[in-house]
Amino acid sequence: MGVLVRGGRVVNADRTFRADVYCDDGLIQAVGEGLEVPQGTEVVDAGGAFVMPGGIDPHTHMELPFMGTVATEDFYSGTAAGFAGGTTMIIDFVIPNPQQRLLDAYRQWRGWAEKAAGDYSFHVAVTWWDDSVHADMGTLVTQCGVNSFKHFMAYKNAIMADDEVLVNSFSRALELGAIPTVHAENGELVFQLQKKLLAKGIAGPEGHPLSRPAAVEGEAANRAIQIANVLGVPVYIVHVSCKDSLDAITRARNAGQRVYGEVLAGHLVVDDSVYRHPDFDFAAAHVMSPPFRPKEHQEALWHGLQSGNLQTTATDHCCFCTEQKAMGKGDFSKIPNGTGGVEDRMTVLWHHGVNSGRLTMNEFVAATSANAAKIFNLYPRKGLVAVGSDADLVVWDPKASKTISAKTQHQKVDLNIFEGMAVEGLAVTTISQGRIVYDKGDLRAVKGAGRYIDRPAFPTVYEAVRKTAERTAPKAVER
Amino acid sequence: MGVLVRGGRVVNADRTFRADVYCDDGLIQAVGEGLEVPQGTEVVDAGGAFVMPGGIDPHTHMELPFMGTVATEDFYSGTAAGFAGGTTMIIDFVIPNPQQRLLDAYRQWRGWAEKAAGDYSFHVAVTWWDDSVHADMGTLVTQCGVNSFKHFMAYKNAIMADDEVLVNSFSRALELGAIPTVHAENGELVFQLQKKLLAKGIAGPEGHPLSRPAAVEGEAANRAIQIANVLGVPVYIVHVSCKDSLDAITRARNAGQRVYGEVLAGHLVVDDSVYRHPDFDFAAAHVMSPPFRPKEHQEALWHGLQSGNLQTTATDHCCFCTEQKAMGKGDFSKIPNGTGGVEDRMTVLWHHGVNSGRLTMNEFVAATSANAAKIFNLYPRKGLVAVGSDADLVVWDPKASKTISAKTQHQKVDLNIFEGMAVEGLAVTTISQGRIVYDKGDLRAVKGAGRYIDRPAFPTVYEAVRKTAERTAPKAVER
Amino acid sequence: MGVLVRGGRVVNADRTFRADVYCDDGLIQAVGEGLEVPQGTEVVDAGGAFVMPGGIDPHTHMELPFMGTVATEDFYSGTAAGFAGGTTMIIDFVIPNPQQRLLDAYRQWRGWAEKAAGDYSFHVAVTWWDDSVHADMGTLVTQCGVNSFKHFMAYKNAIMADDEVLVNSFSRALELGAIPTVHAENGELVFQLQKKLLAKGIAGPEGHPLSRPAAVEGEAANRAIQIANVLGVPVYIVHVSCKDSLDAITRARNAGQRVYGEVLAGHLVVDDSVYRHPDFDFAAAHVMSPPFRPKEHQEALWHGLQSGNLQTTATDHCCFCTEQKAMGKGDFSKIPNGTGGVEDRMTVLWHHGVNSGRLTMNEFVAATSANAAKIFNLYPRKGLVAVGSDADLVVWDPKASKTISAKTQHQKVDLNIFEGMAVEGLAVTTISQGRIVYDKGDLRAVKGAGRYIDRPAFPTVYEAVRKTAERTAPKAVER
Amino acid sequence: MGVLVRGGRVVNADRTFRADVYCDDGLIQAVGEGLEVPQGTEVVDAGGAFVMPGGIDPHTHMELPFMGTVATEDFYSGTAAGFAGGTTMIIDFVIPNPQQRLLDAYRQWRGWAEKAAGDYSFHVAVTWWDDSVHADMGTLVTQCGVNSFKHFMAYKNAIMADDEVLVNSFSRALELGAIPTVHAENGELVFQLQKKLLAKGIAGPEGHPLSRPAAVEGEAANRAIQIANVLGVPVYIVHVSCKDSLDAITRARNAGQRVYGEVLAGHLVVDDSVYRHPDFDFAAAHVMSPPFRPKEHQEALWHGLQSGNLQTTATDHCCFCTEQKAMGKGDFSKIPNGTGGVEDRMTVLWHHGVNSGRLTMNEFVAATSANAAKIFNLYPRKGLVAVGSDADLVVWDPKASKTISAKTQHQKVDLNIFEGMAVEGLAVTTISQGRIVYDKGDLRAVKGAGRYIDRPAFPTVYEAVRKTAERTAPKAVER
Repeated sequence: MGVLVRGGRVVNADRTFRADVYCDDGLIQAVGEGLEVPQGTEVVDAGGAFVMPGGIDPHTHMELPFMGTVATEDFYSGTAAGFAGGTTMIIDFVIPNPQQRLLDAYRQWRGWAEKAAGDYSFHVAVTWWDDSVHADMGTLVTQCGVNSFKHFMAYKNAIMADDEVLVNSFSRALELGAIPTVHAENGELVFQLQKKLLAKGIAGPEGHPLSRPAAVEGEAANRAIQIANVLGVPVYIVHVSCKDSLDAITRARNAGQRVYGEVLAGHLVVDDSVYRHPDFDFAAAHVMSPPFRPKEHQEALWHGLQSGNLQTTATDHCCFCTEQKAMGKGDFSKIPNGTGGVEDRMTVLWHHGVNSGRLTMNEFVAATSANAAKIFNLYPRKGLVAVGSDADLVVWDPKASKTISAKTQHQKVDLNIFEGMAVEGLAVTTISQGRIVYDKGDLRAVKGAGRYIDRPAFPTVYEAVRKTAERTAPKAVER
Repeated sequence: MGVLVRGGRVVNADRTFRADVYCDDGLIQAVGEGLEVPQGTEVVDAGGAFVMPGGIDPHTHMELPFMGTVATEDFYSGTAAGFAGGTTMIIDFVIPNPQQRLLDAYRQWRGWAEKAAGDYSFHVAVTWWDDSVHADMGTLVTQCGVNSFKHFMAYKNAIMADDEVLVNSFSRALELGAIPTVHAENGELVFQLQKKLLAKGIAGPEGHPLSRPAAVEGEAANRAIQIANVLGVPVYIVHVSCKDSLDAITRARNAGQRVYGEVLAGHLVVDDSVYRHPDFDFAAAHVMSPPFRPKEHQEALWHGLQSGNLQTTATDHCCFCTEQKAMGKGDFSKIPNGTGGVEDRMTVLWHHGVNSGRLTMNEFVAATSANAAKIFNLYPRKGLVAVGSDADLVVWDPKASKTISAKTQHQKVDLNIFEGMAVEGLAVTTISQGRIVYDKGDLRAVKGAGRYIDRPAFPTVYEAVRKTAERTAPKAVER
Repeated sequence: MGVLVRGGRVVNADRTFRADVYCDDGLIQAVGEGLEVPQGTEVVDAGGAFVMPGGIDPHTHMELPFMGTVATEDFYSGTAAGFAGGTTMIIDFVIPNPQQRLLDAYRQWRGWAEKAAGDYSFHVAVTWWDDSVHADMGTLVTQCGVNSFKHFMAYKNAIMADDEVLVNSFSRALELGAIPTVHAENGELVFQLQKKLLAKGIAGPEGHPLSRPAAVEGEAANRAIQIANVLGVPVYIVHVSCKDSLDAITRARNAGQRVYGEVLAGHLVVDDSVYRHPDFDFAAAHVMSPPFRPKEHQEALWHGLQSGNLQTTATDHCCFCTEQKAMGKGDFSKIPNGTGGVEDRMTVLWHHGVNSGRLTMNEFVAATSANAAKIFNLYPRKGLVAVGSDADLVVWDPKASKTISAKTQHQKVDLNIFEGMAVEGLAVTTISQGRIVYDKGDLRAVKGAGRYIDRPAFPTVYEAVRKTAERTAPKAVER
Repeated sequence: MGVLVRGGRVVNADRTFRADVYCDDGLIQAVGEGLEVPQGTEVVDAGGAFVMPGGIDPHTHMELPFMGTVATEDFYSGTAAGFAGGTTMIIDFVIPNPQQRLLDAYRQWRGWAEKAAGDYSFHVAVTWWDDSVHADMGTLVTQCGVNSFKHFMAYKNAIMADDEVLVNSFSRALELGAIPTVHAENGELVFQLQKKLLAKGIAGPEGHPLSRPAAVEGEAANRAIQIANVLGVPVYIVHVSCKDSLDAITRARNAGQRVYGEVLAGHLVVDDSVYRHPDFDFAAAHVMSPPFRPKEHQEALWHGLQSGNLQTTATDHCCFCTEQKAMGKGDFSKIPNGTGGVEDRMTVLWHHGVNSGRLTMNEFVAATSANAAKIFNLYPRKGLVAVGSDADLVVWDPKASKTISAKTQHQKVDLNIFEGMAVEGLAVTTISQGRIVYDKGDLRAVKGAGRYIDRPAFPTVYEAVRKTAERTAPKAVER
């Protein structure tokens, strides 16, 4: 049985127009004014509201085993919380231990994710290098619907990728038509700064940002980008938190390089004063990497979205509760890194972005959904309200408002970095695969209803990548 | 009777997909695979080809009276030549003399344009300031379908706008929801450099670029952009020819400002060595302002398109023949400024942009059509292949090739700045208002068939402009 | 009778070394350890202190007639106040009214300055243009010891220089071997913003910075610099107050252009919150142009000094008392623009610059004295502790401290923008022309003892300017 | 017996003045006009010439064992060749093998250098890390007169320093008051590009620049600079060859960071077309790292010198003859990396820098001598013509000219990268330690006369470094 979203204004990345949207069989079947639909069609009244493609959060870590514990939010609860905020798809991460086969890790995560209520996909991390990694990257791309690989430049003595791993993996991604993505922080500097700070007796959460200053991120972002530049491969920098790494992206883009940048909702609106809060629990609740930054970085990040130097917004949703955070009492470097937000991202971006005049509604759709779909080759299946696309929709009421709180959220954790923030502009109805999964407070997520979404290799940018490689191929001199 | 474009791949700015396109009543009526159409429908076979929105050239000067003569190409011949190259709409310029009422000039140009074969619209130049200009700007926007105003910062003692005109006109445009556009060259410097060069005996065409170095353009672009920044109005810089003005745009965009930049096909591929050619006619044929630049600027301009810092491509099509150019023998400052290209723009951009890997096909569509439509609020009527849009299409054969030459062109002038250039990728069929107007060499332009296209005020960017103004409004201190 | 400064460490721009300094006949006669001097020599004990070249304030306006009143500080009191802070020379400004002959104005100022206690020189403003200005510039340079000309890009309908004046005057300065200097604010924007703000009822001092945002300065600085770039003449930007104009300077310098920038002590440490102070008198006391800026600009200005993109520090010393400031009650645009500081500049720069680690002591000397001397071709007569240089010295005690206050200052005004600031590092003894003019609180300034100092044309940078002009001279093509 | 240099104009970094210079006991004893000197004093007639501090080449590799061979130029012949070009001091490099004790290597190089004719000093390379390295760095600084340490980011599997070495060594240098210096090229990328190019059959010298594109250098420079930034230590980038690394330096300097950059004479005037020369020997003669670059980088490097973003000029003098270069026939990666120039640096810089108007004479002295002396804490002993300074002088005839050639040079190698270059402006007489060591073609170098010059720790910049560290020290939050 179909669903008709009636009377709203459709907002796509390229334009806004009045139209009803009719969904059936999981797909959008019709978009137009005054649509006639079969009897029995369920009708969603979108009068006065906007109808947008469901949000895509390209950076989440559901039920991640990390730093000796496991993230509280699982694939079911997390995707359900996404529904409550208008997000209908996530891209999570498979993170092999060093020496673990990539395919083994991939299967492990696929298993965990079967309970998801919403659609999902996986970036796969390359945390080490040998011939098996080379081979498994190939299998993942050609047989498993993976078209992006993640590299952690931080976390020394754990999952950190050094230059050798980066160059090998980026080269392999280029062959395969995949997109390398990078967590950009210089892990050696973080490691040494942590040691120095602890040695000086700075052991509380205030040590966390001190051990990861903005230059640490800027350096790593620039390095990854320049490696990609030399190899001729596109690259995507996750969670750009500061002017330094944004500048590295901007410089490269201005030089014509194919670089993408992602910003987290949190980094746009939360600043680093939280780490000096006298309450350890409050301060520790905000520990994530990269950390929140001094205020001046926030305006820079907004400028990044406005200029198109940053394309996507995400959350790095990785929830640890107060009790878990307490593992780092007396040593900030042991506080599990991670914060939530999959439920809050879209409203936070709307309130602070659209209501303030920083972004148009179309830019909002680009930044919350369409651009991620394009970069990761899901478009137009995802990220677009059009006939033939997946029926993942959010009905957005620009007048609805609430105050964000851990007490009222659907996210499975007792913390929220946006606690107390009043926002105007909310998802009122969310549709996934053509079914209403959230409606005015009523969450109807179905465990296991989410699908693993294959992402084909060679997204559009590879058109340019391949022809550029031909044009600039090195030539021998005859002697 | 309708037209069916069958078997091609539709290329829009956001995606590429297989579909037939059915046109009738001047509109696109259907887009889809295997469309069924009425009998008698004319069929265009687009197998192996791409079907794209017809090109929009946002910068032409048909039959312009300028520097004591009149451009050779009129609105009929010029729009017809556009058809032959895949361009289905132009935005030309109304240029009042100082002291001439804007509305009078507007009516004059409307009269001249009635013979156009393709659709057209007008930017109106603000070349002076008084209350009547203020009033006429209002009338033009609210009653005449004009939503952009042009300002020449060059041409001292003629149509040059000084700071007072710029600030007044930009402020007025902001009230009206219109976009100021700017020809950015410091007219005082050009004036003085011309005098100095002539005094030194540098009177040939080589004096032209020497009198208008890149810094002259960079300064003016920066000035216009910063005036717009202070006033909070979007701004569009026409014919960005050099790194200097591109950098001014890039800096502003990186700071979140709403600035647009246009690049001419010529500036992307022609360099300033032409002015030192021993043959006066050859050198003079290339005299336009801003002039062609040293080679290093070309790569920068391509980067501008790749990064999105430049959004549109145009031609500044303004043809003067060899005889007219000869008016400046012995004094380069008297050579009529202008070159053609409305017929060549798309193939030049495809060959050097898409074939080289600098741009994807989607970016090509954005740069030749969709972005101009969005900025000047014609989208989705123009710039998109979708149901309901105007049936302005080009069928593009990526394998077709030719050598550009004034001898074989449709443009009404005996010169071509791309003379001798071999290009691969051509418009094979062009459809305007649902009618085939060009087909494999057969030009079927109809005099007077072109329509004046109203452009409504307040394009989408004004959503952000207005909310930003509210957020940042100055407040008095109570004392 | 001579003076011996004994036991200190001499700090020059290039190095620091232990030495006594012996002065006689107005000159430094010897520099060395353990100097033997004639009997009767007056001895200054500089043990534990630094001996530096006397400060040069290259930007003051003593007894300036401005905005309907006259600055309170005259040439005598002002140069005396300078002595109390270690400054032994000022460069003031001759500012002709439009249509006034430059030479007439020059003579007027020379007359006023005869009462000065310390050495002085004059920049001459070019506020209009005709043949007499061209001629008088020549006379001033060749016969009057003037080697710099000032241009106000602000103050529309008064002394504002438009592009025509700028280009003509800069060209003339180039011929003469003089340095153009620029007050960089877009006067048209200021004029219009003032009108708009007043129309909106924003009439208090808070309107002052709102009428002159940083972009207004950045635009003008960039314009002046690019005009200079095109003409091939060095240029000096006075009172750089914000990142915007600093960036314009930095870009130009990075491109090899010969551009200089001056920063005021006030802009380094005072921010724009002062204008929103509820007390009109307090707020108005800070009204000067360009205004004090949001805090983030201060760090940028320090970086400018550290990187050498800014070379000099000044004060724009132009004192108006509370009563005069009250002329602008009800209309901020009528508050006389100006603040003091000639007495405070060096200690403020030392405290916030050297004590904080932003500058080395040698950089402090460069920024307070040597660089101004070099740029304005007074070096090594001024700006250096060496045999043969003028005996203008300051003995600097890095441990001495005080709290700055209008109540205890020597400056002749009832206001001080550094009121209440505790500083460590003070001039304890000042020597001018070999005489002790200030010693531990005892000010011994002598009215009329100051000399007008000729500044010869063609400072060193002109070596490069002239050869570059030859190398890059335009050439005609033979046809 | 003394030497009097009579009748010249002394050119120091800060000023130019007429003076005789009298030298005795290895020191400058007097500077002044019309000096009276003891009988028997040897007189050098400097009429019409300039007298400047002898050049310092801060980057040479005499008799270096490298890539399986040994550089042809030894400490005697190399310092003698320096004399012939006006250079009186070199700073060479001690390069321990990984696992070799730094002190052992230091002693080895001290032994080799005993034959030097001119003064010399050593940077010591940190090519690995353990506690002994930490200890030896301390010994070298406190007991051996070493105040700078070198890090190679290139040469994987040999002497490459990874992030761990860099962070440890930079931290140690900071404690010791020493300056870290960096050869900035990403060694992993070079390694992989070499493999790929060879695999593609690109084995000739043209493969050399292809394996080390500018981005490889820019990345490494930025990394080293940002590591230094985070740790708060000054840093010096050797042989900046391209815009990419210059930009990294410029960005950092503009942000107030204490970063220094060195440029080689070769990179200023030789471009990468040499590597595509059909003659292997010619092409191979130019193989050095970083390689010569496309022409546009040269103008950028000149701008670096003009703006002060680059402070020093050097040569990386490391000579291999044609026969040695032939080791890399068939595999460019085996061509010994290195070129000469210690004899040519000053004339090349004068001709292309001063004669062209790019640099003033004072800037020439800064770039060839004074700045290196300041940065490496040799000033004012070296780098200055002043009483008490070492009597290292060059008499420079701006009218003398020659054509550079391997056939006529004093350098001990059969190649010269400046072969055939006509230059105007030459050293005519060179004085080292008060003795004439070169006079109009007569080279009087004395084997073993050169002295090892101690360089004390904590150069002036450390004043700022230490106070900044105090001001910005991290603080714990009390909970």
